[in-house]
Amino acid sequence: MSTTVGQVIKCKAAVCWEAKKDFVIEEIEVDPPKAGEVRIRVLSSGVCHTDAYTQGGHDSEGVFPSILGHEGGGVVESVGEGVTSVAVGDHVIPLYIPECRECKFCKSGKTNLCSIIRITQGKGLMPDGTSRFRCRGQTVYHFMGCSTFSEYTVVAEISIAKVRKDAPLDKVCLLGCGITTGYGAVVNTAKVEEGAIVAVFGLGAVGLAAVMGAAEAKAKRIIAIDINKEKFEKAKLFGATECICPTDYEKPIEQLLVEITDGGVDYSFECIGNVKVMRAALECCHKGWGVSTIIGVAPAGTEISTRPFQLVTGRVWKGSAFGGVKGRSQLPGIVDKYMDGKIKVDEFVTFNLPLSEINEAFHLMHEGKSVRSVLQLNL
Amino acid sequence: MSTTVGQVIKCKAAVCWEAKKDFVIEEIEVDPPKAGEVRIRVLSSGVCHTDAYTQGGHDSEGVFPSILGHEGGGVVESVGEGVTSVAVGDHVIPLYIPECRECKFCKSGKTNLCSIIRITQGKGLMPDGTSRFRCRGQTVYHFMGCSTFSEYTVVAEISIAKVRKDAPLDKVCLLGCGITTGYGAVVNTAKVEEGAIVAVFGLGAVGLAAVMGAAEAKAKRIIAIDINKEKFEKAKLFGATECICPTDYEKPIEQLLVEITDGGVDYSFECIGNVKVMRAALECCHKGWGVSTIIGVAPAGTEISTRPFQLVTGRVWKGSAFGGVKGRSQLPGIVDKYMDGKIKVDEFVTFNLPLSEINEAFHLMHEGKSVRSVLQLNL
Repeated sequence: MSTTVGQVIKCKAAVCWEAKKDFVIEEIEVDPPKAGEVRIRVLSSGVCHTDAYTQGGHDSEGVFPSILGHEGGGVVESVGEGVTSVAVGDHVIPLYIPECRECKFCKSGKTNLCSIIRITQGKGLMPDGTSRFRCRGQTVYHFMGCSTFSEYTVVAEISIAKVRKDAPLDKVCLLGCGITTGYGAVVNTAKVEEGAIVAVFGLGAVGLAAVMGAAEAKAKRIIAIDINKEKFEKAKLFGATECICPTDYEKPIEQLLVEITDGGVDYSFECIGNVKVMRAALECCHKGWGVSTIIGVAPAGTEISTRPFQLVTGRVWKGSAFGGVKGRSQLPGIVDKYMDGKIKVDEFVTFNLPLSEINEAFHLMHEGKSVRSVLQLNL
Repeated sequence: MSTTVGQVIKCKAAVCWEAKKDFVIEEIEVDPPKAGEVRIRVLSSGVCHTDAYTQGGHDSEGVFPSILGHEGGGVVESVGEGVTSVAVGDHVIPLYIPECRECKFCKSGKTNLCSIIRITQGKGLMPDGTSRFRCRGQTVYHFMGCSTFSEYTVVAEISIAKVRKDAPLDKVCLLGCGITTGYGAVVNTAKVEEGAIVAVFGLGAVGLAAVMGAAEAKAKRIIAIDINKEKFEKAKLFGATECICPTDYEKPIEQLLVEITDGGVDYSFECIGNVKVMRAALECCHKGWGVSTIIGVAPAGTEISTRPFQLVTGRVWKGSAFGGVKGRSQLPGIVDKYMDGKIKVDEFVTFNLPLSEINEAFHLMHEGKSVRSVLQLNL
């Protein structure tokens, strides 16, 4: 057993001291896990637009100083009282949507949105209302129940998916958010069927994963859309049958799509977080049955709109969070799919960087130069 | 065989000469049906808000002079060349959504929105691009492919549901629009299941029919909402378990509903055509699975809006037209349900009036004093 068990651990973390400021690598203190909690030695963490969203001050729930990061993989260092589902040494992926298996949501059979710790998680706190992080004498807040930009983190037991030990954590960490979000939206939320025509708006990691899901579902046409044509080559690798740059055309993208698909697409996915694109994604859908799924997270305060006639004439507007996946129950199966070569993960990784280069990783993301940068911790 | 076959028929009709003007009872000329068309002796016609919508000049597709009316019942007077599915003497309900059984929509298995004659129908014309109506030497336009405010009308064969002869046409005419629209939205579009919590906004004929559908589906709570409390008694007759007048409360209705249902309703239905109510109907839905179905027709140019977070957290926004019912295939079965006492129809009728009192019928509707007025023609 590790000698750190029960002790406060001092380790490196990337602290975001306030909104719109770069991360600072600090030595922080991480408390031992309390009852129902697990302390994890984080080995890898993807960087995601949602981290940037909070770092950039767009998240009305953002609390600072904070340790961001929610797409991680690590090894259980110690467990708190009563923890039974994971043990020291287990390989795990933290979950920003927990799965308590007891709340109204978990029992509904209709959603993955377990809400049991939503309030404390939204405040950057553990379920008991306190933080396990300190830096320079100050409390540092948790983020999305994960905080993977730290060499050690503490998460609730219900927020942990245990995964097989032969799965490389520097790859499957990405299943903790982006890939699962896009892929799951296609196969779980929209349930795209064979022969369908699909449009994917935005070709970041989520969009590419949606393309991958559509290819697995045997969609007949997978139309990948982005204003950055450099993303098209990768989109085709993931299964896109055609790529469109909206700025190449004078007509609105939804009109173009309706024309080239004889009435519209069967399924569309918004993977950007832009409310104007969300509208286009709905309105490019086929009358009578087209389903548009919103995946992207829009800036606080922005709203989607359309003419109600779009819905009355049979289009459906829905959304998806974490691909509709129940993390503890279903994420291990997605890891299996990867290990069996049935879904791509390695291809999403464009850069591997040490935690110390986290600001560069965010820069690469903002520049559109990375699909995913994976930070390596505890090197 | 009637001596009118093949002849132009002179008869009474309520002509709407221009938007925002009262109907005028005129003698009109009705041409014989062309190939694929059927001439119907109309015996009864409900009056519906959609007629008032066009009469009031809110329908951007409205063309005048016009013979409105789309909720009728009658007897086939004669058939055009090639008509095989109905014969002289058959009892029929005209359909504003046809069912050709051959187009992409009909064959999709996903929608009732047959679009084969949509363009001509939208222009107030028969599928060949001409009208069968004249008055005072002028062409008078068709409406929604039905024009039931006339003693005789001509409709496309694909726009006719043949119904059993023992069904009273002065009642089942209402299945040609309002009742089927509300009832079908619940049982076909939303597919409300046993034990669900349902909210119905607007307690006109469509809303009452939605309440009735929810009761048939064995919903646990059926919350009926209207600003006119005089409608509550009837709503309870149709199955509402509670009635709420939003103006009795300071808090927004969606907030109230979320509170009294421990998180929101499972299904909501907007049966008014007010985009603000459409938003409330969505936002009163339960996170994770609530489905809001728009049934009402909103004024041209108005838009619905919400925060995309509402959808990303699992609510679904959809719509329904004619209750998702394929008229020729499914309406006879709904008539059977009525004849078997399984659904209410008689209870929707508040007034029976001769065609000559059509303006009074619209007045009663605007005043909220009628659920449905049924006009009797060919008295």
